Amino acid sequence: MDAAAAAYFLGGAGDEITLRANERAWRSIGWLPRVLSTPTQVDISTTLLGQRWPTPWLVAPMAHLRLAHPEAELGAALASAVQGAGFVLSTQATVPLEAVADAVRAEPQRGPLWFQLYPYGGREDWWRLAQRAQRAGYEAIVLTVDAPLQWPSAREQDAGFALPPDWPQPNLPAAAPRGTLETLLGCALRWDDVAWLRRRLELPLVLKGVLHPDDARRICDHNLGDALIVSNHGGRVLDGLPATAQALPAVLAAVDGRRCVLVDGGLRCAADAVKALALGADAVLVGRPVVQALAQDGARGVARFWRHWRDAFQATLALLGCASPHETRSVTLIPMTD
Amino acid sequence: MDAAAAAYFLGGAGDEITLRANERAWRSIGWLPRVLSTPTQVDISTTLLGQRWPTPWLVAPMAHLRLAHPEAELGAALASAVQGAGFVLSTQATVPLEAVADAVRAEPQRGPLWFQLYPYGGREDWWRLAQRAQRAGYEAIVLTVDAPLQWPSAREQDAGFALPPDWPQPNLPAAAPRGTLETLLGCALRWDDVAWLRRRLELPLVLKGVLHPDDARRICDHNLGDALIVSNHGGRVLDGLPATAQALPAVLAAVDGRRCVLVDGGLRCAADAVKALALGADAVLVGRPVVQALAQDGARGVARFWRHWRDAFQATLALLGCASPHETRSVTLIPMTD
Amino acid sequence: MDAAAAAYFLGGAGDEITLRANERAWRSIGWLPRVLSTPTQVDISTTLLGQRWPTPWLVAPMAHLRLAHPEAELGAALASAVQGAGFVLSTQATVPLEAVADAVRAEPQRGPLWFQLYPYGGREDWWRLAQRAQRAGYEAIVLTVDAPLQWPSAREQDAGFALPPDWPQPNLPAAAPRGTLETLLGCALRWDDVAWLRRRLELPLVLKGVLHPDDARRICDHNLGDALIVSNHGGRVLDGLPATAQALPAVLAAVDGRRCVLVDGGLRCAADAVKALALGADAVLVGRPVVQALAQDGARGVARFWRHWRDAFQATLALLGCASPHETRSVTLIPMTD
Amino acid sequence: MDAAAAAYFLGGAGDEITLRANERAWRSIGWLPRVLSTPTQVDISTTLLGQRWPTPWLVAPMAHLRLAHPEAELGAALASAVQGAGFVLSTQATVPLEAVADAVRAEPQRGPLWFQLYPYGGREDWWRLAQRAQRAGYEAIVLTVDAPLQWPSAREQDAGFALPPDWPQPNLPAAAPRGTLETLLGCALRWDDVAWLRRRLELPLVLKGVLHPDDARRICDHNLGDALIVSNHGGRVLDGLPATAQALPAVLAAVDGRRCVLVDGGLRCAADAVKALALGADAVLVGRPVVQALAQDGARGVARFWRHWRDAFQATLALLGCASPHETRSVTLIPMTD
Ligand SMILES: Cc1cc2nc3c(=O)[nH]c(=O)nc-3n(C[C@H](O)[C@H](O)[C@H](O)COP(=O)(O)O)c2cc1C
Ligand SMILES: Cc1cc2nc3c(=O)[nH]c(=O)nc-3n(C[C@H](O)[C@H](O)[C@H](O)COP(=O)(O)O)c2cc1C
Ligand SMILES: Cc1cc2nc3c(=O)[nH]c(=O)nc-3n(C[C@H](O)[C@H](O)[C@H](O)COP(=O)(O)O)c2cc1C
Ligand SMILES: Cc1cc2nc3c(=O)[nH]c(=O)nc-3n(C[C@H](O)[C@H](O)[C@H](O)COP(=O)(O)O)c2cc1C
Repeated sequence: MDAAAAAYFLGGAGDEITLRANERAWRSIGWLPRVLSTPTQVDISTTLLGQRWPTPWLVAPMAHLRLAHPEAELGAALASAVQGAGFVLSTQATVPLEAVADAVRAEPQRGPLWFQLYPYGGREDWWRLAQRAQRAGYEAIVLTVDAPLQWPSAREQDAGFALPPDWPQPNLPAAAPRGTLETLLGCALRWDDVAWLRRRLELPLVLKGVLHPDDARRICDHNLGDALIVSNHGGRVLDGLPATAQALPAVLAAVDGRRCVLVDGGLRCAADAVKALALGADAVLVGRPVVQALAQDGARGVARFWRHWRDAFQATLALLGCASPHETRSVTLIPMTD
Repeated sequence: MDAAAAAYFLGGAGDEITLRANERAWRSIGWLPRVLSTPTQVDISTTLLGQRWPTPWLVAPMAHLRLAHPEAELGAALASAVQGAGFVLSTQATVPLEAVADAVRAEPQRGPLWFQLYPYGGREDWWRLAQRAQRAGYEAIVLTVDAPLQWPSAREQDAGFALPPDWPQPNLPAAAPRGTLETLLGCALRWDDVAWLRRRLELPLVLKGVLHPDDARRICDHNLGDALIVSNHGGRVLDGLPATAQALPAVLAAVDGRRCVLVDGGLRCAADAVKALALGADAVLVGRPVVQALAQDGARGVARFWRHWRDAFQATLALLGCASPHETRSVTLIPMTD
Repeated sequence: MDAAAAAYFLGGAGDEITLRANERAWRSIGWLPRVLSTPTQVDISTTLLGQRWPTPWLVAPMAHLRLAHPEAELGAALASAVQGAGFVLSTQATVPLEAVADAVRAEPQRGPLWFQLYPYGGREDWWRLAQRAQRAGYEAIVLTVDAPLQWPSAREQDAGFALPPDWPQPNLPAAAPRGTLETLLGCALRWDDVAWLRRRLELPLVLKGVLHPDDARRICDHNLGDALIVSNHGGRVLDGLPATAQALPAVLAAVDGRRCVLVDGGLRCAADAVKALALGADAVLVGRPVVQALAQDGARGVARFWRHWRDAFQATLALLGCASPHETRSVTLIPMTD
Repeated sequence: MDAAAAAYFLGGAGDEITLRANERAWRSIGWLPRVLSTPTQVDISTTLLGQRWPTPWLVAPMAHLRLAHPEAELGAALASAVQGAGFVLSTQATVPLEAVADAVRAEPQRGPLWFQLYPYGGREDWWRLAQRAQRAGYEAIVLTVDAPLQWPSAREQDAGFALPPDWPQPNLPAAAPRGTLETLLGCALRWDDVAWLRRRLELPLVLKGVLHPDDARRICDHNLGDALIVSNHGGRVLDGLPATAQALPAVLAAVDGRRCVLVDGGLRCAADAVKALALGADAVLVGRPVVQALAQDGARGVARFWRHWRDAFQATLALLGCASPHETRSVTLIPMTD
């Protein structure tokens, strides 16, 4: 992975305060387990959107994985499936969504396979793309609601990052919106668009990028989605957003068990995932660490990454005296300074 | 910009605790916006002292800009006017105040043009200078109230900074006060001086350097000014003053809408300006970043600086779901640690 | 001590947050002594498990000390005994437990001699090992309850640490458990195992690794041990556990004088030990600093280390106006930031 | 000043947490002054022990100043006197106390001249020394109560610091106590010793090293001194003591105006002194900065140091709107983070 690609994958918006806060927030959570209560077995399988899956984690949707390694989204998805991890394919993937679905769905021990939708073009464009994903076998549509605008980060600008010419974007529903701010604002997704998509869609709808408890409450009250992902887009869109570990509890309180709640942002080791579940999340998404594993060794790197993650996750559960992810909810959490 | 000039422009008083605190205080403010509420347009025009201007920001008054670039105050003022930013000319400018006014006033999209007055000499000296500024077309007098004494910072002393001989000071009303502390204290501006000037002045009066809510209250109660600027002089006069982002809320509460309130100090990016407005300020002043842009590329540097600032400001407003600066006041602000 | 051994001895689990927190927590405790109350004598002898000993400190049980110095556990134990410090021999010592006991017990001024038991194999294996320790003259069995699972730290992995082939482990009751997580979980110690051992054991039983006040209360209420050690295993097993200085007060409150309470983790100088006693602990255990002294100069290094420790401990007590460890409990403690 | 001397002068006890805390505590105090209230004059003269002096500061008693510069205590005392600063001569000075008094007393603008007494030997030894100081013209006896024991700091040990052979100690009342801890404890000063000295002494008695409000209350209630110095001995004796800026308010509250209260430790610039007075201290003592000035340029360095200090002190008072040290007590102080 060259310096420009690293700037693209690892950087964040503004002064990267949110980016750093994401990571630090998980570390600032500690625990006070009971001793002599080790479970005899640890079962980490998890129910998401009504189905049972081998693990409570998925790869977060990330654009342009080909920049990290030629095996790209196909390699990352396949390796994750083999290791029981779910996968969310980005609209901006460099592989046709059908190719990824074909490879993953055959895997017997795989996790969920979801498609992330960016609302490029008009409503009918999104609709066609969602249908295409459904036909290919994706099991949910993930609508990203926190990124109506995006622009290059300071790191990317400094590193001179740009997509190579003729870069493959086989899933883009229409030309990406360009031009003035007003054009961009005109294309932005709004609540009525979500309601419109929700009514037409057969697949479960997952809203990604919720931080404010009032937004979470609205989604539940008006049945605008089946699940939501507490996310600040990995600190890539607007700096100054709270760390997701910090925002999660209020969202969970607002949802109050009415929807499935996932979280992403700054999770760097299996213990962070345990903390997210202990706070009450149903599952987590992992972004940049997967890119780094992919960049290092393609699909093999990703498989190795998830294997270690799973081992550490199970061991951590055992040390906390928990036989399942759900039992982590009764672990005493404490603030921790470093 | 050589090392001695950099020491002059970038340094601060004492241990520079206030200087650092200014910057950090804006970063320690985060926000929790609502999603799916992107405005279709963003209008950043702003009313200040009863007039409508294209943007809510001005260049803070700064002495000796010629040390940064030969285009000096003229270049900075012109480039700012073209980009819709206001400009406050310092008494210690190196260009005659008339020359700056002539260049700026022609600009159709310009921001406000104000003149900052240092009370050198006696009352009649200030009065003549204020009249000269009014005749030249300045739209307000900015009286700096936080700097009765000034002396070289440790950085300046270490770098051996000194003004070159025959340095142009075409606006100084009288010889700058010199000599013993007592002489200096004798010249210091006091409340009755402000009242005296206020009575005679036709132009609006802006008091710069207010931090204590009781001072703000006094200004409103006794009608001693039309606007006030929450400022600690960029940490250049007395170290240990609070960051302006920290002092602002109490001043706003004391003013309670009776006067226009601006703020400066440590604003380094457009998001900081958004935070100032979200806290309730009507507009902001920006100091050192403008000097740095000027030093890099003269008027062109300043124009580029303000263009990026405006783009980022508008995009940030859009991401926060705000169609105007005023709407930022309903954004939920949160503390943020870095 | 080569880099790989240093990684083994000095590293910790995960991101080493607990490891660092342990040390920092003692430093964040300050005191506000009374002046002009210097005692005329300082007596640091201490009662532990009903017997009087010259000092309130012991060497914490640590595996594989031979990696630090060829004098290994024998050297460390002998030097500590000469200096009046207690010694807890680890199950994973590289010297037969009888050899250590024979050397230490002859020392007239020695501290307590305890044996730390890891529950390898089945109940009968532990039982046999405990009996062997009793026959050899150990005065208590220390059962470690916080480490049902262990794996190499990141530091160890990076440094390529591995035990040399044919490494001596003369006290292991059975082959160390290996294989799948389930096998390991099957071997883990649980409350009923402790009760079983407690009933059969003549020697006092010390439970090492208690952090949660509810666990401490349970031990007292059900008489499951004679003493407990507040410990997070020096941050080596599960990262995210609280610093022991932070966990200690709640455990002491739960125990409420019913059992002897010791503490270890991050104690780096005699003043830290004074703070532990001032908080209410009866004695402390010291780990890594002893290894470092051993690595530097074998038994001589350890003896010198304890001599300085004792001198500094006595002087600190005198400066605090305390004639004995017990009197430290009335020193005013304050929070201290660094 | 060579590295070993620097280690002696600048180092502190233990991990130097108190040493650092002293400095940081003054910096963590900010202020929120009123504007437009500049006094026309600033008068910094101060009453101490019933007499008027030109400034509210003294040089703290420090041993062995000859190690910093051959002009030693004589140079430091004379330069301070010329600049209106007081001087406290240490028992461990390298110049006969009479020589210092003879030089200083002639100075018309001088500050107070006090003698610091270490209780070496027995009561009669101290008594003789106190009488000798009185005869020489010292105006108060400063009894140091916070250092019954002292030993080399880690910095000194690392730097191999030792006093040169035949080092002059012309004021030591008796051989410095040596030998076992018990011998040292036997010589320690206690409350009844203070009462004994107080009864016999004609000169005012100042107790140096008070931190606990209960000790301050006892001194006032039982009339054991005329003044007290809030001090932790510059962090040189016992690490973990609170910063003096932190301890000062509670001591002032306990004294409640009944005695004169001074403070030292970590004051590094005139603004720190203003903060001490604003908190309510009557005067301050300055240690290490004076040594550094002496080391740089002997008496001239010290004179220059105090001249800058006085200028900055007056200017700071003026910027705070205060015409005298006493008026600083009504400045609003605020917490400040750096
Ligand atoms: C390089 C990169 C590209 C991303 N592209 C997308 C995307 O196309 N769609 C989307 O919803 N989120 C995208 N994200 C955000 C991730 O889905 C996820 O929210 C974030 O990366 C989680 O934080 P983490 O990287 O700290 O684990 C991207 C993130 C990264 C790092
Ligand atoms: C180099 C320099 C010169 C300044 N000169 C003046 C001046 O002549 N009059 C004045 O009122 N403020 C002056 N200021 C203060 C600014 O108006 C403003 O309050 C401060 O710079 C804002 O902080 P910032 O630089 O962090 O944006 C000066 C500031 C700088 C950096
Ligand atoms: C190298 C090493 C090996 C250890 N081995 C054991 C062990 O075999 N049994 C045990 O109960 N604790 C073991 N511990 C934990 C110590 O007993 C003790 O809890 C910890 O080291 C205290 O923290 P400190 O090293 O910061 O003083 C070990 C610790 C270290 C550093
Ligand atoms: C080198 C040195 C020697 C000192 N010697 C003495 C002494 O002989 N008697 C005494 O009461 N205090 C002594 N002190 C303590 C000072 O009087 C004073 O309390 C302390 O230095 C104040 O802190 P500061 O150095 O941060 O200003 C000494 C301090 C230093 C730095």
